[in-house]
Amino acid sequence: MTLLHAETALLPDGWARDVEVLVQGGRIVRVTPGMPGATLGCLLPAPVNLHAHAFQRAMAGGTERRGDAGQDSFWTWRALMYRFLDHLTPDDVQAIAALVQVEMAEAGYAAVAEFHYLHHHPGGQPYADLAEMSGRIVAAAAETGLGLTLLPVLYEQGGCNGRPLSAGQMRFGNDPDRFGRLWQGAGRAVAQLAPDAGIGVAPHSLRAVTRDGLAQAVAMAPDAPLHMHLAEQVAEVAEVQAAYGARPVAWLLDHHAVGPRWCLVHCTQMEPSETLALAASGAVAGLCPITEANLGDGIFDGVRYGGAGGRWGVGSDSNVRIALAEELRLLEYGQRLQGRGRAMLAGPGQSTGRALFQAAVQGGAQAAGRASGAIRVGDWADLLALDTKAVDLAGRQGDGLLDAWIFAGDDRMVEGVWSAGRHIVTGGRHVARDRIEARYRAVTARLAGLV
Amino acid sequence: MTLLHAETALLPDGWARDVEVLVQGGRIVRVTPGMPGATLGCLLPAPVNLHAHAFQRAMAGGTERRGDAGQDSFWTWRALMYRFLDHLTPDDVQAIAALVQVEMAEAGYAAVAEFHYLHHHPGGQPYADLAEMSGRIVAAAAETGLGLTLLPVLYEQGGCNGRPLSAGQMRFGNDPDRFGRLWQGAGRAVAQLAPDAGIGVAPHSLRAVTRDGLAQAVAMAPDAPLHMHLAEQVAEVAEVQAAYGARPVAWLLDHHAVGPRWCLVHCTQMEPSETLALAASGAVAGLCPITEANLGDGIFDGVRYGGAGGRWGVGSDSNVRIALAEELRLLEYGQRLQGRGRAMLAGPGQSTGRALFQAAVQGGAQAAGRASGAIRVGDWADLLALDTKAVDLAGRQGDGLLDAWIFAGDDRMVEGVWSAGRHIVTGGRHVARDRIEARYRAVTARLAGLV
Repeated sequence: MTLLHAETALLPDGWARDVEVLVQGGRIVRVTPGMPGATLGCLLPAPVNLHAHAFQRAMAGGTERRGDAGQDSFWTWRALMYRFLDHLTPDDVQAIAALVQVEMAEAGYAAVAEFHYLHHHPGGQPYADLAEMSGRIVAAAAETGLGLTLLPVLYEQGGCNGRPLSAGQMRFGNDPDRFGRLWQGAGRAVAQLAPDAGIGVAPHSLRAVTRDGLAQAVAMAPDAPLHMHLAEQVAEVAEVQAAYGARPVAWLLDHHAVGPRWCLVHCTQMEPSETLALAASGAVAGLCPITEANLGDGIFDGVRYGGAGGRWGVGSDSNVRIALAEELRLLEYGQRLQGRGRAMLAGPGQSTGRALFQAAVQGGAQAAGRASGAIRVGDWADLLALDTKAVDLAGRQGDGLLDAWIFAGDDRMVEGVWSAGRHIVTGGRHVARDRIEARYRAVTARLAGLV
Repeated sequence: MTLLHAETALLPDGWARDVEVLVQGGRIVRVTPGMPGATLGCLLPAPVNLHAHAFQRAMAGGTERRGDAGQDSFWTWRALMYRFLDHLTPDDVQAIAALVQVEMAEAGYAAVAEFHYLHHHPGGQPYADLAEMSGRIVAAAAETGLGLTLLPVLYEQGGCNGRPLSAGQMRFGNDPDRFGRLWQGAGRAVAQLAPDAGIGVAPHSLRAVTRDGLAQAVAMAPDAPLHMHLAEQVAEVAEVQAAYGARPVAWLLDHHAVGPRWCLVHCTQMEPSETLALAASGAVAGLCPITEANLGDGIFDGVRYGGAGGRWGVGSDSNVRIALAEELRLLEYGQRLQGRGRAMLAGPGQSTGRALFQAAVQGGAQAAGRASGAIRVGDWADLLALDTKAVDLAGRQGDGLLDAWIFAGDDRMVEGVWSAGRHIVTGGRHVARDRIEARYRAVTARLAGLV
């Protein structure tokens, strides 16, 4: 049983003062405003990071050299990424994932939906335990206490035309049958992790799965979160159009019952009609503004999508930079640069910071299938405390705290984080950072020079 | 006499190991590579922040609520800004400027070019000392040790059509004669500050100065830096076009001998022919990507401009967020989102981080008229030490350090900063932060609720 006590807290019906939150069995069991004696500043529901590939953190900043000829792009970056991951052992993956989860927690996330596609030995030979690598992501979460929704990825082919996997893709590949066995194994590991942990299914993209594979992935766990990359790159849209006769978002919405269990990641390439149809589906758009900027994907059509009631959350994706306030800020800034206005993702009279934060918290929880997203009885106690003594937060109230944190501040203002009641960040630092960082340093020292 | 000693340093001809830098009278007097016994990690020339309005920091995060009707924009933001500054006393301005300079130093800047337009009492009555407010910016620099190029601003009218100043603009206004006296007074204060301090002239914009006023400003100090806002907003372009019969950049290049002493700030609204002509002029484009995103200005045509050899530097402008790595990252990310590629501002085979950093250091020095921009004998010792022990820098070498800092990291990696040899940041903190922050907190407590 834990008692948290904050000067101010964002509750489902708005801001309240002097709020006491009682946590038992990882869940919020009582919320009482108006109780004097607060020890924390501003208490918020902590979001889920809805899309991440842990191992890519170890390449962060290592792919920013321009090639000698031609234009650098998502595709040249992908070739570097394939080369890099061919050197990673299961121990490496666990070490990197643990550090990444530490950084996510310190940024303010209470959980991550890990889109996990690195399954096999270099070359494609499965490990003795088919779910070895999945188990390492779970083991990292056991070390860090970050909430986990594991999304084992089905990856069948090298492109929409059914071409075989390239050498760099062999580590990802499974047919649907073997994927089913891998998924069962991963599910057993997740079940042993923690009661708040969950598992979903992730057909990689329309490029990498067959029509049949996608249908089997959709059918295999009908209530579980279903995540998929979609419409990230112009060349990808062209490839899908050539093979399927339609643009990716349009095709998917026409051929599957896309609804609230779906999280469609990126969707940077949509026609207005696709944007409106996706918004109406009840699915979550998984937006990764920092990575989408780093990879030159383009700007999500957020004003149209939000105006139509579309749901979204944010993910750190490539983990080139794990920064919650910056992720939300950059999402809004992309809209401002595109639309030449301000307060683009807020409704009339709304605070932009509040609108961004609340959408991300609710969308992230939905995408992860996680009973969280608000400070309310019954939810997992996924909580984030901002340090209201920080110089740029001093004197700010209510929505003004969110605006100042997201637009003027950064994750240094995150003082504490709880994941399903586990108190994993205190004084801005993850409780196991020192040990996990030391192991990560040993891994990156060995990998130095590969990126 | 100070001796700095770094494991690695970026010298004019590239990276060197074990570099000893001897500083005397604020200047670099000897640079010796190959000397063992380093105590610092990575030593870099520290850039000038080439465009800032200090007082706006106190509104940061306070203007992100959307209005009840219509579209929020630069212009609605400007109305809030005018309302806010009507409450600021000279003491407030000094307190805010000092904190802002502390934050700039901690972010890695060694100097600032302050574009200073807040001259008079609320209502427009001059202070007994016409240069009172200029003196407060200088006084802040005396407290912080940050290098200063003061740019007193000439502001004559409310718009291109010669309309009078609005109530909110009365605090900025001078005719060229009174401005000349103000500028002389400001120059005396600057002369007493430090040998590296300088003064320039800043006709505010084609909106706010007359043709004659601009000509007088250009003539008054023929060798001094000359800064001007230009082509920031679509509505501004239309206003200039209507009054002058040409777009702002085109008109200015046709009517003035724009060259290396000029710094033209923003230039987000240019036709390709203007971009190429500006690049050929030798002037510096003053880019403020964080503010330009926050205000919805748009994306600078950086690939075309850089490809034509155009010079640029960065400024924190509104100071909504003072963050050097993020400023550079967002500049590049705007280009990537616009052009759908990667490594947009690097040449073939170049590191993007290196290209960004070096351009910003050189352009900033030129714009400020400051003898800095490289670790070389004769320059002011404007230096920045990165903490190579930071987890995301460990194992990185040379350009890889800049790529990791700018794309994966943030200003927490800045360990030390020297401005003309003054050691103003140690262990990541400004040496006078505590005192300056306490005074700033008292000011913002009084101003709370105004934004």
